[in-house]
Amino acid sequence: MTVERVSTGIPGMDEVLNGGIPERNAVLLTGGPGTGKTIFSQQFIWEGLEEGEPGVFVTLEEHPVQVRKNVEGFGWNFREYEDEGLLAVVDAFTGGIGRASEYEKYVVKDPTDASELIGVIRQAVNDVEAKRVAIDSVTPLYIDKPSVARRIMFKLKRMLAGLGCTSILVNQIAAHERGFGGPGVEHAVDGIIRLDLDEVKGRLWRSLIVWKMRGTAHSMRRHPFDITDEGIRVDPEKVFVKEHGEVREVED
Amino acid sequence: MTVERVSTGIPGMDEVLNGGIPERNAVLLTGGPGTGKTIFSQQFIWEGLEEGEPGVFVTLEEHPVQVRKNVEGFGWNFREYEDEGLLAVVDAFTGGIGRASEYEKYVVKDPTDASELIGVIRQAVNDVEAKRVAIDSVTPLYIDKPSVARRIMFKLKRMLAGLGCTSILVNQIAAHERGFGGPGVEHAVDGIIRLDLDEVKGRLWRSLIVWKMRGTAHSMRRHPFDITDEGIRVDPEKVFVKEHGEVREVED
Amino acid sequence: MTVERVSTGIPGMDEVLNGGIPERNAVLLTGGPGTGKTIFSQQFIWEGLEEGEPGVFVTLEEHPVQVRKNVEGFGWNFREYEDEGLLAVVDAFTGGIGRASEYEKYVVKDPTDASELIGVIRQAVNDVEAKRVAIDSVTPLYIDKPSVARRIMFKLKRMLAGLGCTSILVNQIAAHERGFGGPGVEHAVDGIIRLDLDEVKGRLWRSLIVWKMRGTAHSMRRHPFDITDEGIRVDPEKVFVKEHGEVREVED
Amino acid sequence: MTVERVSTGIPGMDEVLNGGIPERNAVLLTGGPGTGKTIFSQQFIWEGLEEGEPGVFVTLEEHPVQVRKNVEGFGWNFREYEDEGLLAVVDAFTGGIGRASEYEKYVVKDPTDASELIGVIRQAVNDVEAKRVAIDSVTPLYIDKPSVARRIMFKLKRMLAGLGCTSILVNQIAAHERGFGGPGVEHAVDGIIRLDLDEVKGRLWRSLIVWKMRGTAHSMRRHPFDITDEGIRVDPEKVFVKEHGEVREVED
Amino acid sequence: MTVERVSTGIPGMDEVLNGGIPERNAVLLTGGPGTGKTIFSQQFIWEGLEEGEPGVFVTLEEHPVQVRKNVEGFGWNFREYEDEGLLAVVDAFTGGIGRASEYEKYVVKDPTDASELIGVIRQAVNDVEAKRVAIDSVTPLYIDKPSVARRIMFKLKRMLAGLGCTSILVNQIAAHERGFGGPGVEHAVDGIIRLDLDEVKGRLWRSLIVWKMRGTAHSMRRHPFDITDEGIRVDPEKVFVKEHGEVREVED
Amino acid sequence: MTVERVSTGIPGMDEVLNGGIPERNAVLLTGGPGTGKTIFSQQFIWEGLEEGEPGVFVTLEEHPVQVRKNVEGFGWNFREYEDEGLLAVVDAFTGGIGRASEYEKYVVKDPTDASELIGVIRQAVNDVEAKRVAIDSVTPLYIDKPSVARRIMFKLKRMLAGLGCTSILVNQIAAHERGFGGPGVEHAVDGIIRLDLDEVKGRLWRSLIVWKMRGTAHSMRRHPFDITDEGIRVDPEKVFVKEHGEVREVED
Repeated sequence: MTVERVSTGIPGMDEVLNGGIPERNAVLLTGGPGTGKTIFSQQFIWEGLEEGEPGVFVTLEEHPVQVRKNVEGFGWNFREYEDEGLLAVVDAFTGGIGRASEYEKYVVKDPTDASELIGVIRQAVNDVEAKRVAIDSVTPLYIDKPSVARRIMFKLKRMLAGLGCTSILVNQIAAHERGFGGPGVEHAVDGIIRLDLDEVKGRLWRSLIVWKMRGTAHSMRRHPFDITDEGIRVDPEKVFVKEHGEVREVED
Repeated sequence: MTVERVSTGIPGMDEVLNGGIPERNAVLLTGGPGTGKTIFSQQFIWEGLEEGEPGVFVTLEEHPVQVRKNVEGFGWNFREYEDEGLLAVVDAFTGGIGRASEYEKYVVKDPTDASELIGVIRQAVNDVEAKRVAIDSVTPLYIDKPSVARRIMFKLKRMLAGLGCTSILVNQIAAHERGFGGPGVEHAVDGIIRLDLDEVKGRLWRSLIVWKMRGTAHSMRRHPFDITDEGIRVDPEKVFVKEHGEVREVED
Repeated sequence: MTVERVSTGIPGMDEVLNGGIPERNAVLLTGGPGTGKTIFSQQFIWEGLEEGEPGVFVTLEEHPVQVRKNVEGFGWNFREYEDEGLLAVVDAFTGGIGRASEYEKYVVKDPTDASELIGVIRQAVNDVEAKRVAIDSVTPLYIDKPSVARRIMFKLKRMLAGLGCTSILVNQIAAHERGFGGPGVEHAVDGIIRLDLDEVKGRLWRSLIVWKMRGTAHSMRRHPFDITDEGIRVDPEKVFVKEHGEVREVED
Repeated sequence: MTVERVSTGIPGMDEVLNGGIPERNAVLLTGGPGTGKTIFSQQFIWEGLEEGEPGVFVTLEEHPVQVRKNVEGFGWNFREYEDEGLLAVVDAFTGGIGRASEYEKYVVKDPTDASELIGVIRQAVNDVEAKRVAIDSVTPLYIDKPSVARRIMFKLKRMLAGLGCTSILVNQIAAHERGFGGPGVEHAVDGIIRLDLDEVKGRLWRSLIVWKMRGTAHSMRRHPFDITDEGIRVDPEKVFVKEHGEVREVED
Repeated sequence: MTVERVSTGIPGMDEVLNGGIPERNAVLLTGGPGTGKTIFSQQFIWEGLEEGEPGVFVTLEEHPVQVRKNVEGFGWNFREYEDEGLLAVVDAFTGGIGRASEYEKYVVKDPTDASELIGVIRQAVNDVEAKRVAIDSVTPLYIDKPSVARRIMFKLKRMLAGLGCTSILVNQIAAHERGFGGPGVEHAVDGIIRLDLDEVKGRLWRSLIVWKMRGTAHSMRRHPFDITDEGIRVDPEKVFVKEHGEVREVED
Repeated sequence: MTVERVSTGIPGMDEVLNGGIPERNAVLLTGGPGTGKTIFSQQFIWEGLEEGEPGVFVTLEEHPVQVRKNVEGFGWNFREYEDEGLLAVVDAFTGGIGRASEYEKYVVKDPTDASELIGVIRQAVNDVEAKRVAIDSVTPLYIDKPSVARRIMFKLKRMLAGLGCTSILVNQIAAHERGFGGPGVEHAVDGIIRLDLDEVKGRLWRSLIVWKMRGTAHSMRRHPFDITDEGIRVDPEKVFVKEHGEVREVED
């Protein structure tokens, strides 16, 4: 039995994942402020589009207009694919207030209402026949009600996998927080990728580690990465050692 | 007085347990996300089937259809044994909603209702004359009500031992959490096996340790293990030292 | 003024206690899961019986039938002494439900009702003219109500000392917990013995330390111990150093 | 696509930011007591005025009269620019009680009422055609209601960016607190600059680090800074290593 | 102005206190279980009696009969001085239930009722014209209501100083707890003496330190002490270093 | 613009503050039990009197009679200046109960009523034309209601600065507590001086550090100090290194 995989499109990341994310997996992308979670999730959608896989980007943290503008900074033109009916940007930010209601096709009025959110995403996935979904972020869905986090994550995951989508669920944690978002969230998802920003001896370092990924072996190392003009670039040949801010070649 | 034992079927694990799990013990299998708890519990059921011991697998975290698909990845065909009446998969995930109600024989509508859950498991055990039970996981039974954890664990344990079953109770803890699930749970069970995933110098390591096991002596060491295409494989001859990510031969 | 002492009967333990537990002391035996508290308390009762001192064993954590079966594993036949009227096993586990009500003579229906528990223990002590009492464990008496822990412990202690009994009160703490059960409990008892299970460099170690014991000097060292086929065996000539997992001879 | 930038005017700071703060960014300036947050935010406004960019300074922590007096200590004459209609000082301190109501043009009666605060700031920005806004501090807006912090920060940020302003939002944390103000605040803003005061070997050290800044690369180093008679002065060529109180040249 | 002092009577302790406790000071004697607080407080009363200073011992933790028996173990005959009208033992333990009401002259029915407690102590102090008071312990007075701890301690202190008494107020903290009982208690008293029991490299060590003492300079060192057959004996010439379990001569 | 300064009168302290406390600053003097906060605040008032600056001492922690007695121990005669109308002692301790109401001129009946406290202090300041105020301590004003701490501190500070007074506000923290009293208090005041008492290798050390002081540069070092028969004496030429209990010369 071979596992179908979805390429992340992020240079170096597929090598870390032994070929990509197993199809239909819901992957928690977790990290503190400034770690690059949003860029990672947008790049995942963009690279899918470039490879012919339609996608849905759900924004809860930024105005959809701002999202389109931000990705342009990396040379990614979301508007074009939206016009071709291959990309849907779901606006779960404005609440449909202001001019957004006129211009945005997919609007979630109350993003803390999981049913509404799931309904709109389902519609968007069906419309563009999406294979990839990114939600930036899932944190507001349960931040005020940790006891239901597990249930909400299960619902989301079931819907997305049921529709045949591979998904990135961005999760925000406080700076310097250990763990990945609490047991309810961590155990509900199929995979966990953690992005880190660490100060070591007066210098900030970026690194990521795949903590779990159902259906595939993966690198068991922490890899350094950079945010460049063209997005994220992971170095699968290097290992980053957190306490010492040391980077060395992968060896076994 | 000799203790009757149940072989785990996991390569290397029986050596760690001086021959297997003492019959009728309820063993807490505890660990963070991505540590391999689900695979361990499924392998325990599978190896029993292969040795002619009927089993019950109770799933609270994954759709029963997904469970059957996942185990196939390790070459374990659950469906076949279900058809022969030697394995029961108890669906405590779907709530009997959707098509599951038609296809699944054992359905728990409300898994937070301990009485219903216990009733359905009892029925399944009786039907297949099970000698082994795995519950993945027991965490939702008490996650919102820690004060009753002890009582629920006692009820489960009494039912399972009363029916003559040896059982694995999967328990989820947050990543990096010490302890095994709180005093109420830890003291209620007959054994505790902890699976760990640790980052040491930029690399992830898997290891397990048997913290307690009533009715038998057992290895007092932390052993490294791997997750392979054929499931978990423990190395009983090696000791894993957590802080240094060092593996060495067992010596006394 | 010489202090009357009660021998623990546990090889090496009396040396640690400069001759045994001062008569009528209520001793807290505290430790995490798997540390051997239950065995210690049963061995204390058994050795009393063998020396001609009647005893009472109160079980809140295990079915009385299971208790009798477990101790047989160490060659201790509780049933025989029960039949002779020298040992009372108080069942505070089953709640008198099921066949226990027929077979068990001493049943506590609601173990969280301290008055009922104390009443039944008093009756049992009087009936067998007990000199030793072990309660395994006192934790459920106050686990949901820490503010009354002190009061409950005082009541128990007053009753037991008033009846002339020397007692072991088992207390469960979470794995890796420091302290002995909170100030309310720690200050209420006459003595504290702590059993530990520590992982040092991939190996588990057993050790105990006497933290306080009214009415006698005692070893101020942490001693290693083993659980053998014949119960616990303490090495009073050896000191265990926790951080380094090192064992060395006692010196002054 | 080139990013428009706003010069901080703080010697050395623009170098740290690769040229300044990207236009319209809302930047969280966070730090413990005595770290220099207020001076930084006032210098940001002052240098804008000197370069011809009108500004708004919102004071929640100090009487507006005291603010004008304090900045004079650094040679910055706020009054003059206010008279010219290029600077608005918004009084969210006095509540309009006392003589403030007569002398202050922009008064927020209840600073915990986010709508009123936003309304008054909007008016002030429009009146002076401000390009820069500093709010000292945003902490009282959510200190008693952390669950709404995210929502309030989003509202503020949307208003300020919508009006074309680049803003500094001062955030107070307790001395020695790690993190930047909690996940709700940290993820809502476009940038985070942290000011620190650390005792190392009996000496206090000042340093800052840019933790995130949307729309630009920035120094990944912790830089030492001083508070002089003329305000803050950052040393972009030096790196401060916190644990050792060591300062060394930037190298790559 | 010379400070009047009260000798503790504990060998070595007066040297630590530069001559004794300043008259009328209320001193918090704080420590975990098994540290020797009760013995210290009883020895303080006993040595006063032997020097002709009447005293009051208030017991909240032990039956007055048991108190008298315990002190005999050190050769201190409380009963004799009680009969001479020079010592009052205030029974705040039995609640006046049982035979205590007949034999005990000073009974506090509800020790959590601070007014009643203070009233009975006042009566006892007046009756025997006490110069010394020890309360073992004050912890139950505020353990369930930390917010009133400060107020209760102030009341006690005012009463005791007002009557001309020097007092030892025993305070119980959990094992391994840092601090002395919380800010409310720590700041209310005139002095703080902390007794410690520390495990260092598998051995228990006893030591004490005077943290504050109004009205006098005192040793700024941590001194080792022993509990012998004749009570506590402090070594004012030695310094105990906690982390290393090292004892060395006092030097300056 | 030159800053007007108020000399602390404490030997060595003005050097630490580059000449004294800037006029009208409200300075938080914070520390654990036994650190010398009360003495520092009294010495500040006393030295003002000796230099001809009237003062107000507000006592919330000690009976005014006891205050006068305590300061005599350092040779400071408060009564004399009170009689001359140059010093007011505000009694916020007795609540006006007992004889205090007859003898004390300035009585605060309910010190938790901030309005009453502020009213009485205002009256006292006006009566003696005070330039200095010390409040020992402000902790009871907000200890039970941390959410209003910020507001109360602002009120106090506004009143004191408005009346032209330079003030010391004593704040009590628990022993071993880091920080200075929580963000609400720390950010509200103009300056923070922290007094410490640290045990290093079995010896207690006194030191202080100025953490912030609006309107002036100040020593960025931790300085050792002593409490002598004549009050506090700071050594501005020495630096105290906390972890090693080491004292060395100031160097740059």
